[in-house]
Amino acid sequence: MEEHELKLIIAQADDAINREDFDAVMSFYAEDATLVVMPGKQVTGRDALRKAFVAIAEYFNHTLHVSQAEMVVIEGAATALVLAKTHVRATMSTGEIYDVERRATYVFKRAASGRWLCAVDNSYGTDLLQ
Amino acid sequence: MEEHELKLIIAQADDAINREDFDAVMSFYAEDATLVVMPGKQVTGRDALRKAFVAIAEYFNHTLHVSQAEMVVIEGAATALVLAKTHVRATMSTGEIYDVERRATYVFKRAASGRWLCAVDNSYGTDLLQ
Repeated sequence: MEEHELKLIIAQADDAINREDFDAVMSFYAEDATLVVMPGKQVTGRDALRKAFVAIAEYFNHTLHVSQAEMVVIEGAATALVLAKTHVRATMSTGEIYDVERRATYVFKRAASGRWLCAVDNSYGTDLLQ
Repeated sequence: MEEHELKLIIAQADDAINREDFDAVMSFYAEDATLVVMPGKQVTGRDALRKAFVAIAEYFNHTLHVSQAEMVVIEGAATALVLAKTHVRATMSTGEIYDVERRATYVFKRAASGRWLCAVDNSYGTDLLQ
């Protein structure tokens, strides 16, 4: 598929997460977006998302590095379903390396301004199904 | 998770597909929704979707039966990401039985009327990633 503008937007969001620039991170989300923090735990709203990102950074000992490899974007009705191979890497406080690849699913919607904002951030994809 | 209203809506849409009531099927989609017909082939817009559903019914010898087993709904910013174990069954014209389970990903959005409409219908889920 051809390069979709969301690929650059998501790369910029990843960069903000990796730099722990949480104000920048929040600018990629809709006001009442939902983040799946881990299977069975999700938070909604920018304030709750910001707290979750701060806690995640702490959990990963401030070494979290997220990036996307292959990505598929399917646009419809001013929304987009993004499927991505997401790479999550960190060095835990024990010195152990955390290194996983997930098949993530993100929903973006086009704001009235024309800007894409993330509405649902579920890096666990269909693994949430039993 | 508690029962989400989208579970009933999707069951009604499946029933309409199984009855080949294409007018009813179309009423579940946003005007410019996108359907992934098969990996690498997608169509956008109610007219194109209707034609695709007619062709799919024909392809499956008018014996197509779709249903969802487990479903997870993640709502955010007036959209919803639906993850579902989708069961697709049919008897081909050769007499062969087609029987597969997919891990589907659907995006719904809330219309101004408050009604949920499907914006992206991708029954192949993250299998579209190589």
